[in-house]
Amino acid sequence: MAKILVETSARHIHLTQEDVYKLFGEGHELTKKKDLSQPGQFSCEERVTVVGPKRELANVSILGPVRKASQVELSATDARSIGISAPVRESGDLAGSAGCKLVGPAGEIDLAEGVIVAKRHIHMTPEDARSFGVRDKEIVKVKVDGTGRALIFDDVVVRVSASYSTAMHIDTDESNACGGATSGEIVK
Amino acid sequence: MAKILVETSARHIHLTQEDVYKLFGEGHELTKKKDLSQPGQFSCEERVTVVGPKRELANVSILGPVRKASQVELSATDARSIGISAPVRESGDLAGSAGCKLVGPAGEIDLAEGVIVAKRHIHMTPEDARSFGVRDKEIVKVKVDGTGRALIFDDVVVRVSASYSTAMHIDTDESNACGGATSGEIVK
Repeated sequence: MAKILVETSARHIHLTQEDVYKLFGEGHELTKKKDLSQPGQFSCEERVTVVGPKRELANVSILGPVRKASQVELSATDARSIGISAPVRESGDLAGSAGCKLVGPAGEIDLAEGVIVAKRHIHMTPEDARSFGVRDKEIVKVKVDGTGRALIFDDVVVRVSASYSTAMHIDTDESNACGGATSGEIVK
Repeated sequence: MAKILVETSARHIHLTQEDVYKLFGEGHELTKKKDLSQPGQFSCEERVTVVGPKRELANVSILGPVRKASQVELSATDARSIGISAPVRESGDLAGSAGCKLVGPAGEIDLAEGVIVAKRHIHMTPEDARSFGVRDKEIVKVKVDGTGRALIFDDVVVRVSASYSTAMHIDTDESNACGGATSGEIVK
């Protein structure tokens, strides 16, 4: 079976345009720093502080472009360290997720919800989905082989779109748990 | 197959008697706070600060009794956060591992080595080893099923001793990666 690229997502934030204005000033547009593997997605020069009841995380990355809802993606280690109990969720599934405060140079906002631990997932092109024999929303297992910590991730959701580049995304806890693996193989 | 208890080890330190003296004062003996699942092992009232090149971790637990070599067990998230590159190792396999500074109320010590990320392992009684059909030092897979993050850990080393109570130990990164599973099943 062909290998899939495995990428580790560090903690990051997606913002609405309105929240960009509140944090960085009226009329502010996000400044692209670097393109990411997913077409059209980019990391930004702007940073914010994520504040929880116990502690805060400074200099957290923002990913662009702006979205319809602001979303904070933390590792479970991060969330616990700042005193937040964030659920494992797919991107965009924010109802009843955790809240936090975001602090930027021009202002701050209280998010009532939007803080999640990202559910591990594979972005996949329709061509690759056919080739791997998997469908959109299918749950698969992925075998990875990092240094001294090989494992098989279950509960990996496949998301198929022509706008994607094929890559599996895991968070820093998951990356550490598998010894920093950078490729994997779907196993049935 | 019978289930195995899975326990999560938070960051902790084992100390030599000599290092206890350096950190807490000449003649000081570790004060037991709570017995752990492994017979004879206990957490202590004493705490130390682990200092790396970038940052420090305050209030790190000490586990007793004292050992022949001091050893600091961090998650990979912890190690990276304080600027240390610690290898995945079995307990006691410290040659060439990472160093750090430890600061206690009576003094500090520079460990040239001893900082590791613990290799996941199962403490097992000889009776359970026979029942599970595994041997000392055997590498096995363990299937766990935490909330939304089921996975199968590979590279799990079995350690068999009559002085053990049967339990698998994983670190906080691994626990977060498997949704906080508390039991598992050896799969062949």
